[in-house]
Amino acid sequence: MSSTYSNNLQLSIFGESHGPAIGMVLDGIPSGLPIDMDALQHFLDRRAPGRFEYTSSRRESDKVEFLSGILNNRTTGGPIAAMIRNNNANAGDYSAYRDVPRPGHADYVAQIKYKGFHDQAGGGHFSGRLTAPVCIAGALCKQWLQAKEVEIGAHIQGIAGIDDAAFNPMDPQFCEINSDFPVLDAQRGQKMINAILHAREVGDSVGGIIECAAINLPVGLGDPMFDSIESRIAQLAFGIPAVKGIEFGLGFAAASQNGSQNNDAFIIHNGNVVTETNNCGGILGGITNGRPLLFRVAIKPTPTISLPQKSVNLAKAAETTLHCSGRHDPCIVPRAVPVMEAVAAIALYDALLAWRNE
Amino acid sequence: MSSTYSNNLQLSIFGESHGPAIGMVLDGIPSGLPIDMDALQHFLDRRAPGRFEYTSSRRESDKVEFLSGILNNRTTGGPIAAMIRNNNANAGDYSAYRDVPRPGHADYVAQIKYKGFHDQAGGGHFSGRLTAPVCIAGALCKQWLQAKEVEIGAHIQGIAGIDDAAFNPMDPQFCEINSDFPVLDAQRGQKMINAILHAREVGDSVGGIIECAAINLPVGLGDPMFDSIESRIAQLAFGIPAVKGIEFGLGFAAASQNGSQNNDAFIIHNGNVVTETNNCGGILGGITNGRPLLFRVAIKPTPTISLPQKSVNLAKAAETTLHCSGRHDPCIVPRAVPVMEAVAAIALYDALLAWRNE
Amino acid sequence: MSSTYSNNLQLSIFGESHGPAIGMVLDGIPSGLPIDMDALQHFLDRRAPGRFEYTSSRRESDKVEFLSGILNNRTTGGPIAAMIRNNNANAGDYSAYRDVPRPGHADYVAQIKYKGFHDQAGGGHFSGRLTAPVCIAGALCKQWLQAKEVEIGAHIQGIAGIDDAAFNPMDPQFCEINSDFPVLDAQRGQKMINAILHAREVGDSVGGIIECAAINLPVGLGDPMFDSIESRIAQLAFGIPAVKGIEFGLGFAAASQNGSQNNDAFIIHNGNVVTETNNCGGILGGITNGRPLLFRVAIKPTPTISLPQKSVNLAKAAETTLHCSGRHDPCIVPRAVPVMEAVAAIALYDALLAWRNE
Amino acid sequence: MSSTYSNNLQLSIFGESHGPAIGMVLDGIPSGLPIDMDALQHFLDRRAPGRFEYTSSRRESDKVEFLSGILNNRTTGGPIAAMIRNNNANAGDYSAYRDVPRPGHADYVAQIKYKGFHDQAGGGHFSGRLTAPVCIAGALCKQWLQAKEVEIGAHIQGIAGIDDAAFNPMDPQFCEINSDFPVLDAQRGQKMINAILHAREVGDSVGGIIECAAINLPVGLGDPMFDSIESRIAQLAFGIPAVKGIEFGLGFAAASQNGSQNNDAFIIHNGNVVTETNNCGGILGGITNGRPLLFRVAIKPTPTISLPQKSVNLAKAAETTLHCSGRHDPCIVPRAVPVMEAVAAIALYDALLAWRNE
Repeated sequence: MSSTYSNNLQLSIFGESHGPAIGMVLDGIPSGLPIDMDALQHFLDRRAPGRFEYTSSRRESDKVEFLSGILNNRTTGGPIAAMIRNNNANAGDYSAYRDVPRPGHADYVAQIKYKGFHDQAGGGHFSGRLTAPVCIAGALCKQWLQAKEVEIGAHIQGIAGIDDAAFNPMDPQFCEINSDFPVLDAQRGQKMINAILHAREVGDSVGGIIECAAINLPVGLGDPMFDSIESRIAQLAFGIPAVKGIEFGLGFAAASQNGSQNNDAFIIHNGNVVTETNNCGGILGGITNGRPLLFRVAIKPTPTISLPQKSVNLAKAAETTLHCSGRHDPCIVPRAVPVMEAVAAIALYDALLAWRNE
Repeated sequence: MSSTYSNNLQLSIFGESHGPAIGMVLDGIPSGLPIDMDALQHFLDRRAPGRFEYTSSRRESDKVEFLSGILNNRTTGGPIAAMIRNNNANAGDYSAYRDVPRPGHADYVAQIKYKGFHDQAGGGHFSGRLTAPVCIAGALCKQWLQAKEVEIGAHIQGIAGIDDAAFNPMDPQFCEINSDFPVLDAQRGQKMINAILHAREVGDSVGGIIECAAINLPVGLGDPMFDSIESRIAQLAFGIPAVKGIEFGLGFAAASQNGSQNNDAFIIHNGNVVTETNNCGGILGGITNGRPLLFRVAIKPTPTISLPQKSVNLAKAAETTLHCSGRHDPCIVPRAVPVMEAVAAIALYDALLAWRNE
Repeated sequence: MSSTYSNNLQLSIFGESHGPAIGMVLDGIPSGLPIDMDALQHFLDRRAPGRFEYTSSRRESDKVEFLSGILNNRTTGGPIAAMIRNNNANAGDYSAYRDVPRPGHADYVAQIKYKGFHDQAGGGHFSGRLTAPVCIAGALCKQWLQAKEVEIGAHIQGIAGIDDAAFNPMDPQFCEINSDFPVLDAQRGQKMINAILHAREVGDSVGGIIECAAINLPVGLGDPMFDSIESRIAQLAFGIPAVKGIEFGLGFAAASQNGSQNNDAFIIHNGNVVTETNNCGGILGGITNGRPLLFRVAIKPTPTISLPQKSVNLAKAAETTLHCSGRHDPCIVPRAVPVMEAVAAIALYDALLAWRNE
Repeated sequence: MSSTYSNNLQLSIFGESHGPAIGMVLDGIPSGLPIDMDALQHFLDRRAPGRFEYTSSRRESDKVEFLSGILNNRTTGGPIAAMIRNNNANAGDYSAYRDVPRPGHADYVAQIKYKGFHDQAGGGHFSGRLTAPVCIAGALCKQWLQAKEVEIGAHIQGIAGIDDAAFNPMDPQFCEINSDFPVLDAQRGQKMINAILHAREVGDSVGGIIECAAINLPVGLGDPMFDSIESRIAQLAFGIPAVKGIEFGLGFAAASQNGSQNNDAFIIHNGNVVTETNNCGGILGGITNGRPLLFRVAIKPTPTISLPQKSVNLAKAAETTLHCSGRHDPCIVPRAVPVMEAVAAIALYDALLAWRNE
């Protein structure tokens, strides 16, 4: 299925970094859902490059053009197609990488898998630029979830080993997130920015962790086994090549706890059955339990760096030294924050469509 | 789609813990593939309960009956159906949990989602017992991968905070795994067993981490975005309710590295282009790069424990104390080791079927 | 995907004619739906062989065993697995056909496609016997549609060129169907039976046409393009190898009409907008319009006949004459009537699950 | 899944008749496949409106813009996205039909299903215009099949009750098809044209039948049951709202034959096992047998006609008379001929991708 996420809704992502356009088709959406185009564009702007000194200097306005499925700012019930033109494409920047693959990037495996026919400019279909259409779909799903009171938020949990404060798992406060550089603790955020600027200065890059939460979810979203909420979110999150890990609730930390610590006791609060703690991250048996859904993803450091690296000239079958001079982010974590919100929104809205069947 | 994993192959898992039978249908398999029934049963025995003092005392022979798709120990090309009868079912053990949900288990969310109509005995369809049919599918895929030289192995990376040695990411040695209690370092393994026995003694439970590897993979398995190798494995792994985290290669540790550290340089070795290190866990851009595939999953402590726990009597809408007396594992990690091998085998064989298209 | 129909619900059919068992897994079903086991068995009995002089003498009780997904005669919300043991299997009857394929049957193509590894006894997975699990799924969906007032019925429209009366497209009367040999006009039915008996006498077979209708459908079932009601029903109907044609409403006859004849005018009747005629068979743009849904399928004559036939001995690469002596139906049309009801029920219930999303 | 055909390849069709653009995403395609852009455009031109006196006067250049997945006229292995701008849109033509649905069209059911939010201009997503992106996908698949010697052709089998000659089922000759008005017998074709022109003159419309064939297919394409070649083609063909019937080989005529007539005997010809006749249309058990694949589809007369028709003003809940004055085809059969070739090409190429797995 490759770039298609197909469940109750179908999402088809298309495009290459330096091709004519990138975009998506989102099918299976009810009719009559309102769309706030300004909010959508604002959401996309959070992901767009070229806005801050710590992101790539490639400038893309990332203006979305809807091709179908929307009339008078409401869904028609037909497939929603949208695209973003690649205005600032500069394929020449990347021609060197066909022969000398960048370490940490998909250049080499794509070369073998696609027998040299792939569009390798800027990583082609493997580029982080493909997260823009994911954000279009995510922005739409997020709005429709908001109409049902479900809110999604994310922040940078850490960059280069510098940790932000964590969400309160019982009550994450999205209003506390600094929106320009999304952290809970602005001071630690400044340290992270410094680490990013330092990495850029020395021609290196840094990675980080993003924490995402969704609140006001009903009890019962998700389906057993391979359509669990964790399965849905993880399948989408790992669609982003930089993601190397995901954990829900306590995640890996749960592995060294006892059951008596880790189990979230049931209590009655304001007349409702709820858990007293939220170690499970709002998910039991793959299904939402009404508490905030919480997950963290690990983002590896950007593979494209200016420092010289050992690589191989495939044409000459000889080892060589690679110097990458193109525009690139010393750290993609800040721009990946809305992408993780998008991932959560798509998975949850899809589960919601499934759940209403029952 | 719930319990169906549907890609190039389709896997349908069915059954409830104390229902008549559990089983699976595996469709989309080529004809003529040989099946070693003894090896399959041996693989299942690794997961079966009741074999060791540190597992549940429920005894299930877990003998597989194939209903279709196999003739003279070879695949016919038709759907493969298999089932395991539940012999030692004891639904009465669990009747209490309908009214008083076990913390950490799916009892409560299932009660709400299915409006009380689900089979709650032993967790019903949410039971860890459902990993047996996953292992049937996995054992088959593992054999077919072996015929292509691909080997899969896993060990307990840690239990209750006690760590095993880790696989050498460049060259994991499966022969070093102690098969009765699958660890690389038998001494640390004994400490883990002691921790499990202690947990059982005090009526508690422990969790752990499993590390899984696959070797001799060709370059090019996996597809972009949502059918990346990570997406496929994660979707399947999170089908097991106890799994709360997954990471590939360095995973979360990569998040605090620099790009210059984390990138795996390309070199020429014995005339082949290979990476010098394997921080990426054998996956770039979602696609295998020929190096060992490595991932770790976090298994939460078994939620069913003998210690008294706070819960709620749903019928009476009153808080209460729950005492669980049924048979249960103080630690499911050892039995989950073959399950993770199964998950890897299914995902990789599926990707292999897709790859041969090209 | 082969034997899996995957949409809002997933249906996996498994089994071979003379293997241990045939069966199905039906996933994606809401919880709490009641099941009338007697009605289900009665539905299956309509398809079972060996009941009348005009059907095969193979006797199969076709007793369904449910393995999962049902508790106290209600759906649990988990996957529903069911199987039928093959009691009266007699694989020896068919061993000759591996070398000498029966004209009109799948023997030859299966031999090539599966490289000789398929189970050819009785047609294996291509046998009409596989319609029994289709009827299990169909009987369930039919009951759940009945709970929403939707009724489905079918009759033999013709056998061997002898036509039955047709349903009134505006108001099909299922009560008029003679249930033993399902026709509207018993006299013409007797002529058809005579034609079948004559065909058996001379060692030949006959085909026919089945007309199926569904009434009380809401306006709006079905989705655009490839999930139209016609697409759903046709995909399922052509899953039965004997089906060679399908048409909806006037079908092929519409091709020679003018638009002014064929268009169904809208009128107001009892305060509701309805069509004045029903040439479209209750479907416009792939979506139900509230009028009776009507379709007809063409069933080819049973390929297995006693008369000598030209075929080829594949082992000897030589032409030969084939004499089929096994048990077989001179006409499968009567037994295919409930199968077509099942096909309609599965497609419509699936569309209903999708429609409730919106 | 609505407008997504999802199997080994995924096809997403999007767009509305008078929206900004129509298009498609085709995913799951191997890399390196060549594309002849001139041949593709020529194929699309066969479907385009406004070329002949017997088609709609709406003029659309239907120039395809590829957005991704193609580089240097070869597939990259990534998703192929393509769109056609709607230049000659004229939504005002259709505003009347929101209140007064056209008989025979999807206006009414769409109004109910989508609660009035759909784009009803020109039928919106239900418009025949959506067959253009189907033809883009089909043109690509057809080229790739041609590279494997598989040829697909179709002709008008009949219009308004005037029959063309039929293909020789053993050896269809595509070179005999008159390409301007695709019939085998030009004289009968002229009669059909006269019938179309007469229908236009009197403000009425006519329907017809299309016969399609594919030759040089290998033995073994298609999968059992719901992925049979018939199921795949029928699911796609009924995605076109005007299609009301489909039959393979003898189709409905087979229903009145005896088995001894209908069975295609196996013989040896030039050292190969082949059938002596081709009543089955090249398909046995849902799988190609190497003989020409043959199917016919019934196309209903265009519902939009100038003659006054009875309909209902939904806003006023009153019966009324509808006069349609927009641009429309008196007969869409000629333009539907390449669409049926496209349907066959998509289904067969998809089955080919699946078959190479084995």
